[in-house]
Amino acid sequence: MTVPRVTEAEIQQALAGLNTWSVVEGKLHRELKFRNFVHAFGFMAKVALLAERANHHPEWFNVYSRVVIDLATHEAGGITQKDLDLAAEIEEVWKSQP
Amino acid sequence: MTVPRVTEAEIQQALAGLNTWSVVEGKLHRELKFRNFVHAFGFMAKVALLAERANHHPEWFNVYSRVVIDLATHEAGGITQKDLDLAAEIEEVWKSQP
Repeated sequence: MTVPRVTEAEIQQALAGLNTWSVVEGKLHRELKFRNFVHAFGFMAKVALLAERANHHPEWFNVYSRVVIDLATHEAGGITQKDLDLAAEIEEVWKSQP
Repeated sequence: MTVPRVTEAEIQQALAGLNTWSVVEGKLHRELKFRNFVHAFGFMAKVALLAERANHHPEWFNVYSRVVIDLATHEAGGITQKDLDLAAEIEEVWKSQP
């Protein structure tokens, strides 16, 4: 199934509601800092479950309390609605952390 | 507590028993490929627990079935016995996967 890329205008509109995200090298980008590794990896575990459920997975990097996330849709060669949806879900996880 | 860096000779000796690891940019480096994201993140969850127990954490990157790990000891500015120990533990997790 091909997923259409979203337009630049659609991305900008979505980012207005996700103002902690930016577009870096054609991907939705977010950098997060946690209290420690337990909190960082706990967050990643939650996001992993949501990603698997959506069958849409992040590119991410972690070192200790820091998590860097990039979202793009490989088969579309850019950002799609799937990325915007996952970004919104990640933001909910971030906001709900203890 | 300061952790001494291990010597080049000690690294080479340890790598002889960990021949799937290499030294890249002064860090122990390993790239792994899994069947899918469930297997990749399942592996990461195991390693996360071991890392937290050892209070020594990896730098790592994941996208879908791929995991890239770099180990170094920040406060020592290089590779220490902690890294060699964690690499050996990671290797055990890798070998024991279903």
